[in-house]
Amino acid sequence: MTKRAVIALGGNSLIKKGQSGTIYEQFANTRESCRSIVRMIQDGWDVVITHGNGPQVGALVLQNQAAKDITPEMPLGICVAESEGLVGYMVQQCLSNALKREHINKSVIALITQVIVDPHDPSLAHPTKPIGPYYTEDEALTMLKQGYQMTRLPRGWRMVVPSPEPVRIVEGEIIKKMLDDGIIVIASGGGGMPVVEKEGWGLDGLEAVVDKDLAAERLAEAVDAHVLLILTDVEYVYLDYNTDAQRPIETITYSSLKEQYHACKFPVGNMGPKILATLRFLEQGGERVVISNIEQGWEALQGKTGTTILPD
Amino acid sequence: MTKRAVIALGGNSLIKKGQSGTIYEQFANTRESCRSIVRMIQDGWDVVITHGNGPQVGALVLQNQAAKDITPEMPLGICVAESEGLVGYMVQQCLSNALKREHINKSVIALITQVIVDPHDPSLAHPTKPIGPYYTEDEALTMLKQGYQMTRLPRGWRMVVPSPEPVRIVEGEIIKKMLDDGIIVIASGGGGMPVVEKEGWGLDGLEAVVDKDLAAERLAEAVDAHVLLILTDVEYVYLDYNTDAQRPIETITYSSLKEQYHACKFPVGNMGPKILATLRFLEQGGERVVISNIEQGWEALQGKTGTTILPD
Repeated sequence: MTKRAVIALGGNSLIKKGQSGTIYEQFANTRESCRSIVRMIQDGWDVVITHGNGPQVGALVLQNQAAKDITPEMPLGICVAESEGLVGYMVQQCLSNALKREHINKSVIALITQVIVDPHDPSLAHPTKPIGPYYTEDEALTMLKQGYQMTRLPRGWRMVVPSPEPVRIVEGEIIKKMLDDGIIVIASGGGGMPVVEKEGWGLDGLEAVVDKDLAAERLAEAVDAHVLLILTDVEYVYLDYNTDAQRPIETITYSSLKEQYHACKFPVGNMGPKILATLRFLEQGGERVVISNIEQGWEALQGKTGTTILPD
Repeated sequence: MTKRAVIALGGNSLIKKGQSGTIYEQFANTRESCRSIVRMIQDGWDVVITHGNGPQVGALVLQNQAAKDITPEMPLGICVAESEGLVGYMVQQCLSNALKREHINKSVIALITQVIVDPHDPSLAHPTKPIGPYYTEDEALTMLKQGYQMTRLPRGWRMVVPSPEPVRIVEGEIIKKMLDDGIIVIASGGGGMPVVEKEGWGLDGLEAVVDKDLAAERLAEAVDAHVLLILTDVEYVYLDYNTDAQRPIETITYSSLKEQYHACKFPVGNMGPKILATLRFLEQGGERVVISNIEQGWEALQGKTGTTILPD
């Protein structure tokens, strides 16, 4: 039986530290990210690829602000949709080129994806997710007056937006059908566009962003994936990260990880959602979660590096 | 047997004359555009929807220029991909809401779409397609120095970009399969991202835009459509448009239309490509092309208004 995986690529892996994010840099990084994916497909895996969009959506927000006197500013949900176009196109083209060079005859498609959230999600009333660049205090005060929500962080001020919990991927059933048909699917980019269901109306978009790892987990549920592979910029999940006591986790079971999670052993904004996604996936019957860096995804899947989390 | 149609929505229909193009206007116009599509689906048609992106890609180009000192400017092909995300999301959400309200249980998906062009297409060396806003002569001179290609038009200066001929829709086969499976597909938005095939490498993007009606025709070939329905901002195709001799065409055959086309009876930048797409589709065995305005698409398909073009 074919094994099925959802691969979640970190948005920062497409624009690396020190890069400004030109399209040439982004394409080069995307090609590098495809290496592990090609190896998995060669090995017979069905894959759905999802990706972050932090730097890309940040750039779109900046572009919208810079041009707002000459062309109407688009809301955040629309910037997410635009980033799905941008990143979806890059991954689709790079992956399908890489497969062709390996003489693998598989179709790759990228789907615009919506994700249902709860209209009563507490995050909608209390935005906490920082996006975009850092601002000075003066700039932040001006933006506050213009109606943006801002927060002061150690390095400066940033915009904050709601980040509601993903409930269900709208296109989940179709994505599963495409996988069943042997198609490689890119979906739920940037977490997907958050929408609420309105009685008598249908779906309606929101000014918010959904965490892409939590959305990847919902996607993994929707397609009955065996494995959730989260590729980011660290080789392992670490306990007591960035302290003298920092140590990598190689293998851990669900209950031990849950204990560490509730003891707040992982940074909230970074590794926290990945761990939460991991716990949920295993609770839903997932067989395995692997977390490692983009460069070593294939090796991590084989247990040669990275953190593997297993059911109890 | 199910009838199959490709519906090409004009980009200007989503931002109407006198509108600035806020997201609220665009969503309202998109909902209006869906009315005819819903009627066709109720009537049992398989449909693929494609759309223009002129105003949307123009806005993205402006936003990129306005922010170029703070975040890297994205090339035109990437702006097209972003506009596919934006418009694809709007059409997908509005159409699927409208279908649900009519109790039609059909899935709607939007696909990122690439279109193959010939690397030796003469347009690549001689850009002629105007995009984006009008500039003053001073602004245009500055932009020329920055490397943009500009052209002087009666109302002012505009950027011009290459617009190569579409050869083949990369995702055509998959789109056909989805239609066969009863899925409603949105594809090839803004003509699709133009790519060339490079020996030993694969596909590579270009700084260009493809005419969306010519791309719609390639899409119609790829999915074996019976009908190509081109919805724009005029009710009929007119002979001697905007002259005292202007008269609408109700029904015309392939050969008569071809004769008028070669006698240059249609404006090059506007109706010209629609007529060329029409001729090609009928040459490839298409049964019928209908051209009318967005509001009356359904009525035009039934022959109650609009221009119908039939094989000889």
